[in-house]
Amino acid sequence: VLATNCAELFESGILAGLHLVVTAGPTREAIDPVRYISNHSSGKMGYAIAAAARDAGARVTLISGPVTIQAPERVNLEKVESARDMLEAALEHISSCQIFVAAAAVADYRPLNVANQKIKKSGDSMDLTMIKNPDVVATVAQHEQRPFTVGFAAETQAVEDYARGKLENKNLDMIVANDVSRDDIGFNSDHNAATVLWSDGQQSFDSMSKDTMARQLIELIAHRYQQYTKK
Amino acid sequence: VLATNCAELFESGILAGLHLVVTAGPTREAIDPVRYISNHSSGKMGYAIAAAARDAGARVTLISGPVTIQAPERVNLEKVESARDMLEAALEHISSCQIFVAAAAVADYRPLNVANQKIKKSGDSMDLTMIKNPDVVATVAQHEQRPFTVGFAAETQAVEDYARGKLENKNLDMIVANDVSRDDIGFNSDHNAATVLWSDGQQSFDSMSKDTMARQLIELIAHRYQQYTKK
Repeated sequence: VLATNCAELFESGILAGLHLVVTAGPTREAIDPVRYISNHSSGKMGYAIAAAARDAGARVTLISGPVTIQAPERVNLEKVESARDMLEAALEHISSCQIFVAAAAVADYRPLNVANQKIKKSGDSMDLTMIKNPDVVATVAQHEQRPFTVGFAAETQAVEDYARGKLENKNLDMIVANDVSRDDIGFNSDHNAATVLWSDGQQSFDSMSKDTMARQLIELIAHRYQQYTKK
Repeated sequence: VLATNCAELFESGILAGLHLVVTAGPTREAIDPVRYISNHSSGKMGYAIAAAARDAGARVTLISGPVTIQAPERVNLEKVESARDMLEAALEHISSCQIFVAAAAVADYRPLNVANQKIKKSGDSMDLTMIKNPDVVATVAQHEQRPFTVGFAAETQAVEDYARGKLENKNLDMIVANDVSRDDIGFNSDHNAATVLWSDGQQSFDSMSKDTMARQLIELIAHRYQQYTKK
């Protein structure tokens, strides 16, 4: 029944006329010209959301960190490396988009100093001082021209508690909470399970393919966005 | 003329009866379950060397860090993540191989402490203490059962000076020196240029495809190995 309803909603173009921006993949934070800090995000979830939003009739901009998967057709792909690159790309679209979905796994910290030359191995230990990166989704959600903003929380413990904290602290409209400690779902898997939280409700998605989850998420986002614009 | 000679050498199976181990790609050093430190190695050079050695008649073991390229057929692929994994895999083959080619870009340092849970963003800065990883190629070259050992040096400055220092300090038989500061060759390119150094000689390879360079390198390695076994 859900599948039928979902297909009908997509056929009717539930996001027609809207511009949706989605971020995807990891960021890479340079240590020197050769080395970097990154994370295990594959980009699959964000890319699936871009494709589902396009199928729902939206104009889609996909801001992507370095990944090895193919971009969906008929979306505007913007490739970035670092968290600061990703924020800059996001802010360029903030006034033209109605919905912003932050599926990227943005590095929280970056090395304070980026060496111009490859750092030579010398001592037995090396201290790397890291400073906080800008919070892309919080910056977008707290902007005066903020779109309807959906965040992701990849956690390994107390998943829903942390996610509800982020929903409130970052001024998000919705948050998708993932447990990345599970091997069967998450970063490098084609499957995912999640709990989506908003101010006065939540919905759980059992383990399913990322493509299926993306379509159901887009359906839920479109529904919540309609409520939001009625306020 | 060189191409003809090269083809003849390959037809005659210049490495027939030998076991060649080649390492390739980057290593990943975990910070926590989500984050890691890595480098821009694509694995292309090591994979091309594995294929060329196979074509020259060798039995080939390819010890590879995480890459996105396809492994050549008819080589024994062993996938590893960290520098310590790579060393362990290399030492398993040390007594059965005659030639060891260390094309991997092994992380010099790894985080001292690996968190069991995703580290929560807290302070404005974070100090990451890193300790030196084992040196895979030096450990192999200094082992009492050492094979003929070929290292790589990816540098961004004073390329040949650093490489000759590594040749001596690590007890290598040959070293392939790359200038990774050039955009047109190196880590993510299909092309490479290099200078190969040994105790009493050197040979330069101008910019060429990594497949072509791999075949010429294998030819040079086979020639130097023959000199080595005559000693």
